[in-house]
Amino acid sequence: MQDSTENLIARRERVLGVGAPLFYEEPIHIVRGEGVFLFDADGKRYIDMYNNVPCVGHANPHVVEAMQRQAATLNVHSRYLHEGVLEYAERLVAKHDASLERIVFTCTGTEANEVAIAMARLATEGRGIICTDRAYHGNTALVSKLTWAGGRSDPEIRSVRFPETFRPMEEGLSEAELADRYLADVEAAIESFAADGVPLAGMLVCSLFANEGLPNIPKGYMARAAKMVRDAGGLFIADEVQAGFCRSGRWWGYEVTDFVPDIVTMGKPMGSGLPLAGTVARADLVDTFRKRSGYFNTFAASPLQAAVGAAVLDVIETEKLEERVADVGAYLRGGLRKIECEAMGDVRGHGLFIGLDWVSDRETNAPDLEGSKRVVDRLKDKGFLTSNAGAHFNVVKLRPPLVFERQHADLFLTAFEETVRELY
Amino acid sequence: MQDSTENLIARRERVLGVGAPLFYEEPIHIVRGEGVFLFDADGKRYIDMYNNVPCVGHANPHVVEAMQRQAATLNVHSRYLHEGVLEYAERLVAKHDASLERIVFTCTGTEANEVAIAMARLATEGRGIICTDRAYHGNTALVSKLTWAGGRSDPEIRSVRFPETFRPMEEGLSEAELADRYLADVEAAIESFAADGVPLAGMLVCSLFANEGLPNIPKGYMARAAKMVRDAGGLFIADEVQAGFCRSGRWWGYEVTDFVPDIVTMGKPMGSGLPLAGTVARADLVDTFRKRSGYFNTFAASPLQAAVGAAVLDVIETEKLEERVADVGAYLRGGLRKIECEAMGDVRGHGLFIGLDWVSDRETNAPDLEGSKRVVDRLKDKGFLTSNAGAHFNVVKLRPPLVFERQHADLFLTAFEETVRELY
Repeated sequence: MQDSTENLIARRERVLGVGAPLFYEEPIHIVRGEGVFLFDADGKRYIDMYNNVPCVGHANPHVVEAMQRQAATLNVHSRYLHEGVLEYAERLVAKHDASLERIVFTCTGTEANEVAIAMARLATEGRGIICTDRAYHGNTALVSKLTWAGGRSDPEIRSVRFPETFRPMEEGLSEAELADRYLADVEAAIESFAADGVPLAGMLVCSLFANEGLPNIPKGYMARAAKMVRDAGGLFIADEVQAGFCRSGRWWGYEVTDFVPDIVTMGKPMGSGLPLAGTVARADLVDTFRKRSGYFNTFAASPLQAAVGAAVLDVIETEKLEERVADVGAYLRGGLRKIECEAMGDVRGHGLFIGLDWVSDRETNAPDLEGSKRVVDRLKDKGFLTSNAGAHFNVVKLRPPLVFERQHADLFLTAFEETVRELY
Repeated sequence: MQDSTENLIARRERVLGVGAPLFYEEPIHIVRGEGVFLFDADGKRYIDMYNNVPCVGHANPHVVEAMQRQAATLNVHSRYLHEGVLEYAERLVAKHDASLERIVFTCTGTEANEVAIAMARLATEGRGIICTDRAYHGNTALVSKLTWAGGRSDPEIRSVRFPETFRPMEEGLSEAELADRYLADVEAAIESFAADGVPLAGMLVCSLFANEGLPNIPKGYMARAAKMVRDAGGLFIADEVQAGFCRSGRWWGYEVTDFVPDIVTMGKPMGSGLPLAGTVARADLVDTFRKRSGYFNTFAASPLQAAVGAAVLDVIETEKLEERVADVGAYLRGGLRKIECEAMGDVRGHGLFIGLDWVSDRETNAPDLEGSKRVVDRLKDKGFLTSNAGAHFNVVKLRPPLVFERQHADLFLTAFEETVRELY
């Protein structure tokens, strides 16, 4: 017999603590998943348009079989030789730019970002890290200092305004001028570190600025920012925890925003729900890190991680998800743009990573957090799971499993059109 | 066809980096595990006397089946309600002292220690953390500051000498006097923080001082240290990442060393190789942490973690491993103590967590790192996997899966006796 929602919430507060985060005004009780679908305890079916972790679909049979087979054979730490771990590492590294040759496996994106920062600091002998003012890169003491870092929260952190064209830092500028202005922020951060005698270690940003709200960014920003950082002795780190694994319709977000990072961190979709993450970088950077840190992670680089990670790559390749995501994403964005709604100020994104920027005023593009929340809750009632994100939390975030198809997009477009008609 | 050891090492350096840690002078290539056995690529069988992660045995069928079943059903993050997660959390918390009521799940022991420190800092509004001078608690920027912390590596960290009776800080003292001396170190750390205006957050130690070398500690040390820390406004954190889950013949190491912590961290054996860890604490501490940190961990508190974690508890309970570990551990220690070897200065430990302290001189108990390494390598050749640990790395560490039986102990004792005869 299923426990009631009220009882589950009470038990949850009792054992996980009051305030453990839950989605939706009325939380949902999910019991089963299959492909793009989730099912609640009453048998209601949802189309999952939020979860990027089960990137090849909930309960993907190929992934489940690989996990089962490896768990039944061997799962140990990485201080013994194991061919499966090496094969997976080689295969994954090969998906990256040729300059990125080696990998350090971890269990979570947070840990991958910890490794990246340690790697940059050891290689440069610098300390200072530049991030944006509306970023999220994880939950440890160090990495959480980069969360919504305002001004100088820490002597070794400087934040810059994230680049965007929809609510630009100044009105009336051309895209090229806007790029210059945002890059002046990066230069100022570099100079500020220099003035304070903090040697630069690098800059760490999401390749698509996912938590900032997937902004359209002025052309050339990333490559120029990376050059500025390198010229100042630092390294440029791309956080691909959300942006990677074909999410954008390209393998990596940095291909979309057109730059080559020195270090890349990966996570969420990598193990389709098995904790699996990692940091890829140039050979010299990884070797310096290995040598000077002695890093070891008990559960990482295990045969289980490798088998499951390889199965995820199999599905992405076999089902040609890179191309499919580009196609279905463009189709979905096209459909959304045809829906008229005064409050939907912007439809943007790449591949199956789409943001709908909700505004209370089309002249000023003032963010409408409450409006976007109502849309998310109404869509949930209609059987579509989405959420809110962005610098103002007013962006309806669409990020379904990569196996989301045009037929699912059609169902969503119908429900979305109904939703905005009912609410507006 | 199997790749050669040389090729595997070369591939490993190329893709994982030069210096990724490997065990043994001649690394081994493990391909399969079953119960207490591991098998290499040539079919050679080893008795695993090192791995605590596969605590209920390599490839335990009940754990594999639970993992497969849950992965095929549902595996999502914790912002939906899920009964399996709550059941597991309730069951695990109930294994602890009644004062410890709530849990925050993470993926790794490192993350669990990050949560514990953040929790202590938020609850006390203090910052200072006391650890021992030969500890290891994980690999992030914060937690790695506690690794072999000498003196004042960081203004918010103070280290104390770990308590021990085998190589005591001063000769000729009674156990009670020794306890006083080691506790004076804790008092000095508290006073040093006070003098520097750093409010105390707490003290974090392994309940059995595993990395320090499993010392016998002067009676009463832990409870008195905990009281001193609490009296100074701090919280006492027990790291049970190695000590927990019946390793010592009791459920928790803190039952052996006889104290009740405010916060407990757990990891390694918890998910039998699935990344699964967590922090258990008093209700008020967890609630304050939830409220003030907004902590979220994508892969943690998932239905997969819960299903696998519950299966591990099933096996421990069904096979009565708490009692069995106490019995087999005592049997193994007894057998070891009967083996005469001048270099084996001490046989100590609890349950199936045993340290053999290797010395070059029985008068001074001078640590013999090279001797202990030779023993570990020779035992490996004979088909028994062990390793080195301790403050001087001269302790042969025995920490087999909990399902290790008297028959395996007999095989080991024979091989061990042969080894010392051959080497000494």
